Amino acid sequence: MSFRIGFGIDFHQLVAGRDLWIGGVKLPHVKGALGHSDADVLLHAICDALLGAACLGDIGVHFPDTSADFKDIDSKILLQKTYRLIAEAGYKIENIDSTVCLEQPKIKQYIPEMQKVISTILSLNENAVSIKATTSEKMGFVGREEGVAAYATTLLISINN
Amino acid sequence: MSFRIGFGIDFHQLVAGRDLWIGGVKLPHVKGALGHSDADVLLHAICDALLGAACLGDIGVHFPDTSADFKDIDSKILLQKTYRLIAEAGYKIENIDSTVCLEQPKIKQYIPEMQKVISTILSLNENAVSIKATTSEKMGFVGREEGVAAYATTLLISINN
Amino acid sequence: MSFRIGFGIDFHQLVAGRDLWIGGVKLPHVKGALGHSDADVLLHAICDALLGAACLGDIGVHFPDTSADFKDIDSKILLQKTYRLIAEAGYKIENIDSTVCLEQPKIKQYIPEMQKVISTILSLNENAVSIKATTSEKMGFVGREEGVAAYATTLLISINN
Repeated sequence: MSFRIGFGIDFHQLVAGRDLWIGGVKLPHVKGALGHSDADVLLHAICDALLGAACLGDIGVHFPDTSADFKDIDSKILLQKTYRLIAEAGYKIENIDSTVCLEQPKIKQYIPEMQKVISTILSLNENAVSIKATTSEKMGFVGREEGVAAYATTLLISINN
Repeated sequence: MSFRIGFGIDFHQLVAGRDLWIGGVKLPHVKGALGHSDADVLLHAICDALLGAACLGDIGVHFPDTSADFKDIDSKILLQKTYRLIAEAGYKIENIDSTVCLEQPKIKQYIPEMQKVISTILSLNENAVSIKATTSEKMGFVGREEGVAAYATTLLISINN
Repeated sequence: MSFRIGFGIDFHQLVAGRDLWIGGVKLPHVKGALGHSDADVLLHAICDALLGAACLGDIGVHFPDTSADFKDIDSKILLQKTYRLIAEAGYKIENIDSTVCLEQPKIKQYIPEMQKVISTILSLNENAVSIKATTSEKMGFVGREEGVAAYATTLLISINN
């Protein structure tokens, strides 16, 4: 039995005229996240943490934003594909801890739904998927509500060795 | 025996007329950290890493900045409360590694005292509590000395399964 | 057997007239990274993650930027020295996962070479050294191409207990 840890980070601009998808949930807000896919910053950070822990490249390698295949794609599909990749490589997820760094809107009330969505895709108990919320205290591009950031860390177990 | 990893991040503005508490130690400086509590950026990042690893929510859930109970509170009390929460959930801390990202003042000489404070609260050996210092090389809000950031990661062991 | 996790972060300004070293590889670009050493942001983040996991201080403690010994030094030497420090302390590296946050140039094509350089220095299989690339979506100092950031996480095993 061996362990692997991973860490993913993602950023998206917040702009008018886009939906705001975070953690597989659509949040009501005056702005949404800009991106080639649905721009779900939390699911992207989790994908990157999982891929990184398994040393399988990154989200840009597997789901390039230059490919029409991924235009406006639901990031839950990307998370499913990522899950299949790490499972095929012989890894099981021990847990995920994540943080969404966003000034507005407050995501707290949506976190249980996000945990349900993510844990279902990854075949985990909900208590193995932690989602935390913070702001950057009015500083920087997150603080000026120009963007959103997400951080995710994960621990994998190799079921082969 | 199972493992859980967590990652916490925190930011505070630096302003005149406030004390600068970092890692449970008061640092002499012309500015201090703005916040509802004593705004100890390092202890908050560590609390969030611990809560996240145990999937117990975040510091804003347990110690809301809208509650008079936590106004100007010593963050060492928040760390103690966090420790009790994760212990009650059946977790033991393997180690903590953290980074304070701050332009001025230099924290290096205070790190041993911070390690002592934190390891005492968490019933750990001092060598299980790593604190590192960096700057953001004059860039961004940390670089302009408008704010401070801290990052913490932790590994927990479940003593139940 | 016990485990230790670490997390390192590093930033450097991008300026004309400097080389751009990332992950031990020199990348062709109109700007390079400013610093006392060769300013290799990825190797520095990895050094800090390793030192932090082993609770051995940080890169600034071991390789101070005020010392002439480290002026313009090749950061591969710093990584070698870091490896010796953690090995002497009784630690073996389980894996490293890292992310370079940079707008331009794209590093993707250089990642296999970086993995080879780093894994050779650390006596690891290449699939234990993950390197991911992202941008900050045109936001902040990375987005304005004023700087580069790198994040690294690592899992160590103590071979003594």
